[in-house]
Amino acid sequence: MGKIIFDSGISLDGFFAGEDRGPHNPMGGVSGLIHQWMFRQKAFWRHLQMEGGAEYGPDSKRIEEVIARTGAYIMGKRMFEEGMAGWPEDLFAADVYVLTHEQRDPLVQKGGTTFHFITDGIESALEKARQSAGEKDIRIQGGANVIQQFLRAGLIDEFYLHISPVFLGRGIRLFEGIDRDLYDLQLLEAVPTDLTTHLRYQLTKR
Amino acid sequence: MGKIIFDSGISLDGFFAGEDRGPHNPMGGVSGLIHQWMFRQKAFWRHLQMEGGAEYGPDSKRIEEVIARTGAYIMGKRMFEEGMAGWPEDLFAADVYVLTHEQRDPLVQKGGTTFHFITDGIESALEKARQSAGEKDIRIQGGANVIQQFLRAGLIDEFYLHISPVFLGRGIRLFEGIDRDLYDLQLLEAVPTDLTTHLRYQLTKR
Repeated sequence: MGKIIFDSGISLDGFFAGEDRGPHNPMGGVSGLIHQWMFRQKAFWRHLQMEGGAEYGPDSKRIEEVIARTGAYIMGKRMFEEGMAGWPEDLFAADVYVLTHEQRDPLVQKGGTTFHFITDGIESALEKARQSAGEKDIRIQGGANVIQQFLRAGLIDEFYLHISPVFLGRGIRLFEGIDRDLYDLQLLEAVPTDLTTHLRYQLTKR
Repeated sequence: MGKIIFDSGISLDGFFAGEDRGPHNPMGGVSGLIHQWMFRQKAFWRHLQMEGGAEYGPDSKRIEEVIARTGAYIMGKRMFEEGMAGWPEDLFAADVYVLTHEQRDPLVQKGGTTFHFITDGIESALEKARQSAGEKDIRIQGGANVIQQFLRAGLIDEFYLHISPVFLGRGIRLFEGIDRDLYDLQLLEAVPTDLTTHLRYQLTKR
């Protein structure tokens, strides 16, 4: 059975996004600070089917690794709505489960991407995503609020963290209100690069 | 001229201490979670002139490195008061500048430790500490509030961070309210061990 994972870039002071988030500004204007390492990668732009990125090394490897192991995605409605404006049709090439309050028929796109709209909670989304993912992993794509729901529910098995060498000072923190006794954590990997520090942790629910 | 540094252990969710701090409980009951790696080190107990610690490897090396480069210390009054209950007389073997509101004569201890009580602010403490430290570095010893004052004032040149693989969920965060445009940061070193992840950053005030 696959794992439940997420992958997130944060600032050194723990922020996932700025405080001024809104439509057409999903990261609160700080993408360039937190995700600068990512925007420089060929692997990132290639995945978006765009030209871009001058670098292809250990940073790109992490991006490709996460994409390769993922068999299904879960995301929040806001990420879905904001993302649809820019994603190519076959970006995910997998089932994507969107957490929402609105009943809606699945949205089938070319290249094997189907968006399913889940109105009965994260456990339900998880159950369906497991069917889709098979032996592969389920990635909790975001936003921060959705990742936090899974984290607090004790459902995450592993995550990738990319700590960028910047202070944001204010914004939305990734890790908020996680119960002290919920998990045992183990560092699986630490890869510092010129642009960021990649950490990978394994979580075992107690 | 020496650098202004600090050295701090934090949880993976960014907490420096628990929320229940008080007399005889300076860490809010979470020392064992955040500083477990340190308590296992021979170098830590040796510095306190006590027996203890089964391990002497890369974790101990970091402890010794910070001690060796430090020529003077600055700390808050609470850390001084709570620490004096347990510190051996010649622990610091250097001038220690204590930020306080109370005028008090210097406290001279054996082994070259003298506590100086500074009532006119962090810049004044820094100026005096520079005289004491000579070519060596000035360590902002803590607590979190004192480290934050120096960080926010743009005065820190370098710091060691030890990220322990635990979530605390609540408590006192180390990095709070640091202006986004204050520093350029660069990772100098990342050393993952079985117990924690040692990161070292260089800060350049813009």
